[in-house]
Amino acid sequence: MREKILVEVSARHLHLCAQDLETLFGKGAQLHNRRELSQPGQYVCEERVEVAGPKGSLKGISVLGTRRPATQVKVSLNDARALGISAPVRESGVLDGSAGCTIIGPAGKVELSQGLVAAKRHIHISPEDADKQGVKDKEIVSVKLDSPDRSLVFGDVVIRVSENFNTSMHIDTDEAQAAQAQGEVYAEIVRK
Amino acid sequence: MREKILVEVSARHLHLCAQDLETLFGKGAQLHNRRELSQPGQYVCEERVEVAGPKGSLKGISVLGTRRPATQVKVSLNDARALGISAPVRESGVLDGSAGCTIIGPAGKVELSQGLVAAKRHIHISPEDADKQGVKDKEIVSVKLDSPDRSLVFGDVVIRVSENFNTSMHIDTDEAQAAQAQGEVYAEIVRK
Repeated sequence: MREKILVEVSARHLHLCAQDLETLFGKGAQLHNRRELSQPGQYVCEERVEVAGPKGSLKGISVLGTRRPATQVKVSLNDARALGISAPVRESGVLDGSAGCTIIGPAGKVELSQGLVAAKRHIHISPEDADKQGVKDKEIVSVKLDSPDRSLVFGDVVIRVSENFNTSMHIDTDEAQAAQAQGEVYAEIVRK
Repeated sequence: MREKILVEVSARHLHLCAQDLETLFGKGAQLHNRRELSQPGQYVCEERVEVAGPKGSLKGISVLGTRRPATQVKVSLNDARALGISAPVRESGVLDGSAGCTIIGPAGKVELSQGLVAAKRHIHISPEDADKQGVKDKEIVSVKLDSPDRSLVFGDVVIRVSENFNTSMHIDTDEAQAAQAQGEVYAEIVRK
């Protein structure tokens, strides 16, 4: 049996490009680290924004550091429905043809023509752990998550191998609820 | 290969007992059928209520007919989180020790000490289709749902056999989003 993998639940969040950071928070604005995330160099910022669509808006969405070359908004499909936006399921950074939205900050507003996505479920994994698990970068695997009343096997989980990664699986809030994943949860790669 | 089963997504809803119906909508109030549901005798009513918890409230929740011996509120786990309520995952009608909430109608308010649950995923199935699928009442099965980016296998799916049922699987909105189930979707029982 393979070693189990820590499951982390990603709530809605966004990454900003340099220009959008200035538009939303003012000229020369910097991000302020509030809390480190499990992946080295990634952190939740003090800065928060509102994201709006044709049907509604979501307030208090966390900005994550570091900055990115292009602004990216990650929401659950339930969030997207509340916004009235059809969000494609995408790997991080794959934004071509993704959905638009409005981002509202204290100093201004950004009309994003694309960048809003739902995250494709994925496993961040170190090269050493990838060897142990017998998986490769970009491979698609299935992952079993046991819970008392809602066990399931997630298909379409993409493997991302990097020396910069601590090994953990990331799912969104809808996926966590579908598995009733609460507290510290571990999952197992069951087949490739 | 077994025949595939229609998947229907249940949004948050509730069933009322006779007394709570009168408290919420006034003495002698009746339910008004707005739309038939797939299960014979079940319908969405014109009547809507608000459900509140310590952290928030959800407005415009549909009352379903028919009336029940005890009031039952079915929400997704994301809904429960928004309300600030810890909802157990339960089969329909199994309410002992389930969560409380406040229900607000146009004529009054009900403080429910128990009755709020998240639905255990289930398959309504006719005796004839149960024979074809090789499953029995109360059996727990796994069900595979294919979608372009979020295929998965739901475990802990309970079979409910009755002559009154049209065959269909019911999942909630969180489960639908975790599988990116959109439009007319079918699933397959993959093992018992």
